[in-house]
Amino acid sequence: MPKPVSSALKPMDVLRGSLNSSVLVDVRGNRGYSGILEGYDVYMNLVIRDAAETIGGQDHGMYPRILVRGDNVIYVSPVNSVRGE
Amino acid sequence: MPKPVSSALKPMDVLRGSLNSSVLVDVRGNRGYSGILEGYDVYMNLVIRDAAETIGGQDHGMYPRILVRGDNVIYVSPVNSVRGE
Amino acid sequence: MPKPVSSALKPMDVLRGSLNSSVLVDVRGNRGYSGILEGYDVYMNLVIRDAAETIGGQDHGMYPRILVRGDNVIYVSPVNSVRGE
Amino acid sequence: MPKPVSSALKPMDVLRGSLNSSVLVDVRGNRGYSGILEGYDVYMNLVIRDAAETIGGQDHGMYPRILVRGDNVIYVSPVNSVRGE
Amino acid sequence: MPKPVSSALKPMDVLRGSLNSSVLVDVRGNRGYSGILEGYDVYMNLVIRDAAETIGGQDHGMYPRILVRGDNVIYVSPVNSVRGE
Amino acid sequence: MPKPVSSALKPMDVLRGSLNSSVLVDVRGNRGYSGILEGYDVYMNLVIRDAAETIGGQDHGMYPRILVRGDNVIYVSPVNSVRGE
Amino acid sequence: MPKPVSSALKPMDVLRGSLNSSVLVDVRGNRGYSGILEGYDVYMNLVIRDAAETIGGQDHGMYPRILVRGDNVIYVSPVNSVRGE
Repeated sequence: MPKPVSSALKPMDVLRGSLNSSVLVDVRGNRGYSGILEGYDVYMNLVIRDAAETIGGQDHGMYPRILVRGDNVIYVSPVNSVRGE
Repeated sequence: MPKPVSSALKPMDVLRGSLNSSVLVDVRGNRGYSGILEGYDVYMNLVIRDAAETIGGQDHGMYPRILVRGDNVIYVSPVNSVRGE
Repeated sequence: MPKPVSSALKPMDVLRGSLNSSVLVDVRGNRGYSGILEGYDVYMNLVIRDAAETIGGQDHGMYPRILVRGDNVIYVSPVNSVRGE
Repeated sequence: MPKPVSSALKPMDVLRGSLNSSVLVDVRGNRGYSGILEGYDVYMNLVIRDAAETIGGQDHGMYPRILVRGDNVIYVSPVNSVRGE
Repeated sequence: MPKPVSSALKPMDVLRGSLNSSVLVDVRGNRGYSGILEGYDVYMNLVIRDAAETIGGQDHGMYPRILVRGDNVIYVSPVNSVRGE
Repeated sequence: MPKPVSSALKPMDVLRGSLNSSVLVDVRGNRGYSGILEGYDVYMNLVIRDAAETIGGQDHGMYPRILVRGDNVIYVSPVNSVRGE
Repeated sequence: MPKPVSSALKPMDVLRGSLNSSVLVDVRGNRGYSGILEGYDVYMNLVIRDAAETIGGQDHGMYPRILVRGDNVIYVSPVNSVRGE
């Protein structure tokens, strides 16, 4: 994988580039949410569609739409990071 | 479910779109509240009517009206996400 | 109970509407305070009169007047929510 | 005790009205301080004179003067709430 | 000790009045520092000279100079509160 | 290694100087991420490419790209600190 | 050591006076870092060179350069406090 020499990617760019794509979100309290990122704001509050929740790594529920408060977010990872931007 | 190509949904839009509808709210300390969202503010403080409380997944009480402080919110999920907006 | 179609209720409206009425306040650390709401501010600091304290659900003490710091508040619930406002 | 119909009491009013009077202060970490309130600021930092400290409900020490950082305060209660103000 | 009728003592006044005097500082995580207060700022960051550290009440070390971050401070107590100010 | 006599290095300079280079990031909750730093912002939110995650020191997963929220960061260490800047 | 009668030392002065000198930094989660302070900012984010890490008092690793987030800092102590400033 060649090393890019381009300028820095802003964290908010990652969220913008992940809109309408799959993300995995890790949240304090040993929780995870995977689904389609529908929206976000500067506080890293996230709106996720068709969200599958895990607690302690176990499947726990499905939410048609969920708003996760940014305070609790540990990381957001685009599931398919091969994107042109 | 077709993938939308529309613009992003702001987190506060989810709250506004959920007014007078059922929401499920997860709160730190293993608590949950489900009821009708009556109001909110930018701190994600929430007003919920006819709120059923669970603690550790067990039914714990009913509140005609409850104001949940935003600091403690983990997520808000509209119970019926099929809404035109 | 008919479903209101009115505009949203702001969280601070709930506090203002509860002045001089009974509230139940849940606080981090497994505490609760019930009494008459005498005052509040935008940080959700609360002044409660004739406050009965519970710790872990057990009665723990009475305070003629108590100022609860907003940081610790989980929820505030008006005890009698049937109020004209 | 007659129910006041007056306007709301601001939380900072309670602190101002308690100056040079006895207060009981509850602090995170299972601590309490009782003494004479000498001063405060908007962060709820408190100066207490002749402060008796309890930890876990046990007497732990006396301080001629102590400055308690507001971040840690859970509640402040005037010991004698029958005051003209 | 006569009860003062003077105006309130601001928390920062206590720090200013303790400069170059002995203080006892209690810090989250069951720690304490006693020494000479050399400086402070509005965040309650503290500079202490000849600081003796206790952890869990046991002597743990000596520091010629230490900068304690205000976030962690629970209280500051002047060791000799009989001071003219 | 000779002791520099130059002016101070700002923390954000370390992040800027680490762009497109390997970093090790330690995160609350006993987690670590190592990979290529792609971006950051003033909140210390970090974008890491080809991130290897450890939990409790054990390998836990790989992420093509991950956005770590700054609130959770304990430290960032450039893996190869011998850089001209 | 004679007692200074000079004006107060600002916490940030201690950091500035420690540049390019040895410091011991204590961090939440039972960690410590000792090394040469290369930089800092007003959030108390710290850049440390040749940093030796301890966890629970045990040696844990060496970092050529490390950026410690200020939020986690408990104290910073100059290892050699006899400095002219």
